[in-house]
Amino acid sequence: MIIVIRDKATEAQVSELMDWLHSFNVKTNLVTGVHSRIIGLIGDTTSIDMDAVLAREPVEAVKRVQEPYKNANRRFHPDDTVIEVSGRRIGGGSLAVIAGPCSVETEEQLMKTAIAVKNAGADFLRGGAFKPRTSPYAFQGLGKEGIDLLIQARKETGLPIVTEIMDLSDLDLFADVDIVQVGARNMQNFTLLKALGRCDKPVLLKRGLSATLQELLMSAEYIMSEGNSKVILCERGIRTFEPETRNTLDISAVPLLRQKTHLPIVIDPSHATGISGLIEPMSLAAVAAGADALEIEVHIDPKNAWSDGAQSLTPEQFGASMKKIRELERFMRGKEGIAI
Amino acid sequence: MIIVIRDKATEAQVSELMDWLHSFNVKTNLVTGVHSRIIGLIGDTTSIDMDAVLAREPVEAVKRVQEPYKNANRRFHPDDTVIEVSGRRIGGGSLAVIAGPCSVETEEQLMKTAIAVKNAGADFLRGGAFKPRTSPYAFQGLGKEGIDLLIQARKETGLPIVTEIMDLSDLDLFADVDIVQVGARNMQNFTLLKALGRCDKPVLLKRGLSATLQELLMSAEYIMSEGNSKVILCERGIRTFEPETRNTLDISAVPLLRQKTHLPIVIDPSHATGISGLIEPMSLAAVAAGADALEIEVHIDPKNAWSDGAQSLTPEQFGASMKKIRELERFMRGKEGIAI
Amino acid sequence: MIIVIRDKATEAQVSELMDWLHSFNVKTNLVTGVHSRIIGLIGDTTSIDMDAVLAREPVEAVKRVQEPYKNANRRFHPDDTVIEVSGRRIGGGSLAVIAGPCSVETEEQLMKTAIAVKNAGADFLRGGAFKPRTSPYAFQGLGKEGIDLLIQARKETGLPIVTEIMDLSDLDLFADVDIVQVGARNMQNFTLLKALGRCDKPVLLKRGLSATLQELLMSAEYIMSEGNSKVILCERGIRTFEPETRNTLDISAVPLLRQKTHLPIVIDPSHATGISGLIEPMSLAAVAAGADALEIEVHIDPKNAWSDGAQSLTPEQFGASMKKIRELERFMRGKEGIAI
Amino acid sequence: MIIVIRDKATEAQVSELMDWLHSFNVKTNLVTGVHSRIIGLIGDTTSIDMDAVLAREPVEAVKRVQEPYKNANRRFHPDDTVIEVSGRRIGGGSLAVIAGPCSVETEEQLMKTAIAVKNAGADFLRGGAFKPRTSPYAFQGLGKEGIDLLIQARKETGLPIVTEIMDLSDLDLFADVDIVQVGARNMQNFTLLKALGRCDKPVLLKRGLSATLQELLMSAEYIMSEGNSKVILCERGIRTFEPETRNTLDISAVPLLRQKTHLPIVIDPSHATGISGLIEPMSLAAVAAGADALEIEVHIDPKNAWSDGAQSLTPEQFGASMKKIRELERFMRGKEGIAI
Repeated sequence: MIIVIRDKATEAQVSELMDWLHSFNVKTNLVTGVHSRIIGLIGDTTSIDMDAVLAREPVEAVKRVQEPYKNANRRFHPDDTVIEVSGRRIGGGSLAVIAGPCSVETEEQLMKTAIAVKNAGADFLRGGAFKPRTSPYAFQGLGKEGIDLLIQARKETGLPIVTEIMDLSDLDLFADVDIVQVGARNMQNFTLLKALGRCDKPVLLKRGLSATLQELLMSAEYIMSEGNSKVILCERGIRTFEPETRNTLDISAVPLLRQKTHLPIVIDPSHATGISGLIEPMSLAAVAAGADALEIEVHIDPKNAWSDGAQSLTPEQFGASMKKIRELERFMRGKEGIAI
Repeated sequence: MIIVIRDKATEAQVSELMDWLHSFNVKTNLVTGVHSRIIGLIGDTTSIDMDAVLAREPVEAVKRVQEPYKNANRRFHPDDTVIEVSGRRIGGGSLAVIAGPCSVETEEQLMKTAIAVKNAGADFLRGGAFKPRTSPYAFQGLGKEGIDLLIQARKETGLPIVTEIMDLSDLDLFADVDIVQVGARNMQNFTLLKALGRCDKPVLLKRGLSATLQELLMSAEYIMSEGNSKVILCERGIRTFEPETRNTLDISAVPLLRQKTHLPIVIDPSHATGISGLIEPMSLAAVAAGADALEIEVHIDPKNAWSDGAQSLTPEQFGASMKKIRELERFMRGKEGIAI
Repeated sequence: MIIVIRDKATEAQVSELMDWLHSFNVKTNLVTGVHSRIIGLIGDTTSIDMDAVLAREPVEAVKRVQEPYKNANRRFHPDDTVIEVSGRRIGGGSLAVIAGPCSVETEEQLMKTAIAVKNAGADFLRGGAFKPRTSPYAFQGLGKEGIDLLIQARKETGLPIVTEIMDLSDLDLFADVDIVQVGARNMQNFTLLKALGRCDKPVLLKRGLSATLQELLMSAEYIMSEGNSKVILCERGIRTFEPETRNTLDISAVPLLRQKTHLPIVIDPSHATGISGLIEPMSLAAVAAGADALEIEVHIDPKNAWSDGAQSLTPEQFGASMKKIRELERFMRGKEGIAI
Repeated sequence: MIIVIRDKATEAQVSELMDWLHSFNVKTNLVTGVHSRIIGLIGDTTSIDMDAVLAREPVEAVKRVQEPYKNANRRFHPDDTVIEVSGRRIGGGSLAVIAGPCSVETEEQLMKTAIAVKNAGADFLRGGAFKPRTSPYAFQGLGKEGIDLLIQARKETGLPIVTEIMDLSDLDLFADVDIVQVGARNMQNFTLLKALGRCDKPVLLKRGLSATLQELLMSAEYIMSEGNSKVILCERGIRTFEPETRNTLDISAVPLLRQKTHLPIVIDPSHATGISGLIEPMSLAAVAAGADALEIEVHIDPKNAWSDGAQSLTPEQFGASMKKIRELERFMRGKEGIAI
């Protein structure tokens, strides 16, 4: 951490600042120039709040050099984290595909979709039982019944299941779920993150609509700092001024997160674009950029979907796209030095 | 709601669409032109999901004409909502000032600040007991102890207290709190909103970092649809590309929300700007734009604040600003036809 | 400027970097800690390109401490700049109001509007002769004829005129214009800025739709570095995700620019909001925040305006708003210590 | 175009509105429901300004159904446009690679880079002679001398040249340039666009930092409406709140523009990310998403580049990336039904 001192700061103020900094068990280096003074901090600055530094009287500016996350940081954990669930892997060179309907609606809808995505080569089944909907008048999900149906679909297809938790109070219902998803709107629900950090269950953490990548990593750190290191990061589009797509898919998050963290990275092209015709090209782009997994919405009858039909693929469309996605995966893996 | 039909849609598709629409108890008007067909829906379309419409095969575009919120809508509730707490009012022509430290830290810090803000003319005392912090290594708030201290400060000063809830599981601790605050990161924590909708307690709902004003109103609708109509809206800055301020304070939210809703509107210049020197001019701007209340951070010793010191005013600064704020309030109220 | 060195950089690399830095006539201070090395630069770093520094092999991060602008910087020019035109002043404690139609359409339209805004107390007449329109099929402005009409309107009313230049090749046509406006889309038309820097004419420079305040100041610096110091900065709304208003008016730009620069600051609530009903409250907010001037669109018949009618006030609306604006101006000026 | 009428509009107002609409030679359909009235417009609405409609008294909302661009619209020009320059093609199924330094600096730098990128398989040479720099104190480009050097490099390598025009007054200097680039900051320099529309020369038009895709297409329309149909669209990153990358590369622009327009689409990963390590993965992503071309910065000595060194590849890095890019291109082309 580097601290720039105001021109007019007195020696007493600077000395008081140095004392305060030393209380965090870091070493300080004061550089005195003709016009400016700078303090360099050496040691573990993770617990020093940049805002607290900025609030000190003689401070003009602060810059963090080391990232404020430890457990999620590749610097301290150089090897890729691989999440294994019932023989399926997310991370470590393979491409996992998570597919299924936005919402669990009926037994028939879920079973048909589950079988279809399995046949098309998906590795995991997704489906929402608790749905975060902007409107209180929209369908809110089947709740416990939805989770029961997912467990039944797993029994029939063997696909491990991924479903979203919306509130800590429902945690018990997720005991038999394979991967717990935290949605974009809950990325900074810190109480929930901490509780999930005390579970021994993989967590698929979605980037918030306007969260920076560092904030996403800090949310992963919340989970990891409680002991659960099975975190999967998911980029699902960020909010920008562009109205044509629901959000703007930030594919550069893949190589950038790859540098900064050892955690696996999923791309969700369905929520990112909101347009079914863009899902295949954006999936291919994600694979080419080195994503570890894709999360794709599939519905047996999108035009009658209870939510997000406009961005769902039919089983036929999904099957055709999967063929290309798997071919590209094999191609990328075959090329020495190409990511994946 | 207006639905534009694709050029190539068949009559059978359009007819199936019309049947589906009629299942929502709305009337339809089909306009057939030379090159295009349009359906106008008449009736209560609140329960019709725009995404579901878009997913129907023959649909090219959808536009909602009526707002999707009812309880929060000024169209159906023309009179301003006024929230009364222990004789203090938010809304209805007065200007309420909510002030206090970002976090409750110690008894001494809170009591001194509470007395100072009271003497300066504040109407409510704010203070965080549960703190949503980006880093798990930062101070997370005193929790229950913080709420107890706030209650004690209320006893000493008579100021009603405002404090933030972070998770539904803490709800019991807020039984004796006057106004429950929902933070920006929880604006779409729908489970929490619904639970607060079943309380008989005013809720101060902060706009999410990248939430549209319509989304803010839909979150208010979540609370109101469960029976609690005491909702106060708070603009606290949105996330943009500008790095100089922490967020960009959208003051135009005040007159715009005034048109769309009857709920009172608070401006929080402290979190919006993150710079103590901008709080006074932005407070004055908010008052001139017609805000019903201000929420301002005050700390007896900002340079030693455990959180957000850089944006806190000292009691002296707050006192000086309050003098100008109250004078401007009186001026605005005196001018016939000027808002407030 | 502070430069953070990569962990693994060799001494030779650092030494080469130091030599290169010295070629810019700055002094360097190398701080060597246990885990990190930092270089502090002392002297005039304006001509050092941060990207060029970042590209040097051993560099991990760079932070500028001093602002990269000199002429526009309050640090070096503590006194407010006041622009005087025919006895009217922008800056220095008064409030100037620039009003008129979006586009000059006809002689009758312009003369009627000019007389109306003068009678309502405007100080300057605005009107577009060259119109930057998103569509090539939309009205593009009257060009030279529009400027001639503005000059005629000045003769009749005595109001100095403000009009926008779109291209350097039209510069001669602006010889008799009082203030040349550079629109948001041209804020980084550097060739145009340099040419205006060689004129002896005030320039009203609008912030680009997604320009940071520092970029706005750097564009002012382009003009000033060529010798013309009569620059007026204008905030006219930035592009965000919020769809209800055309742009988001960043009123915090007023107090923030006030700290950073000595140049006068104008607020344009018409383009910022795009909604005529928001112009009065946002004008009052701007005055309360300390703006030096307002630029407001007025049209004698907004519903028949050739451009931007939805955001134009009628002369009656403008007159009523001006009454409140001038009262607030007097109030603000009367309060000791209140900005303006 | 669909127009929603206000509840309280009188019949006379609606009738006056209808008359005004008929003056644009369009047909109108008025739908009268119980609570609302809607007008559907049929015919060519390109010349009707949505803002002008919104400004009419009885209008509550307007929605455009047809896109406001004609020449750039795939609806009217279903076949892909292919730009041919000296035997090289952009568009139509091949992948063109445009490579070279950010700025032309010296003869040696340019010639070495030109030969290197040619050997690595680039199709076009890029290089900036006029540089739009945020700071007036930064290197502004060699101007005419830079163009002369590019022409000399073309002579030596046979690679057609691409270089940016910053102002209309320099147009004559571009007579012997193969493709004229319009930078992001000039995307809405409409005077320049119109002048380029009167040239018989391909124009590579970069998306503005905060321009919507529709605005990009409208800028293309400016060029095309003057007669020049050789327009190449370029996505180069948009401005968002994410600070890790210089901009956010919107790869979904590729399949989305593919649907809306017949013009070829280039991706510039260098300016979009600003980080040399991200250029290869983002190039591969762009190819997988179906881009027609890539524009990549290469410098023989990035650490001594006069501009944008941090985002430039060395010839060796570029060569290694090109191998993968070309292999992926062949793979994508080989897959039936895969874009490209």
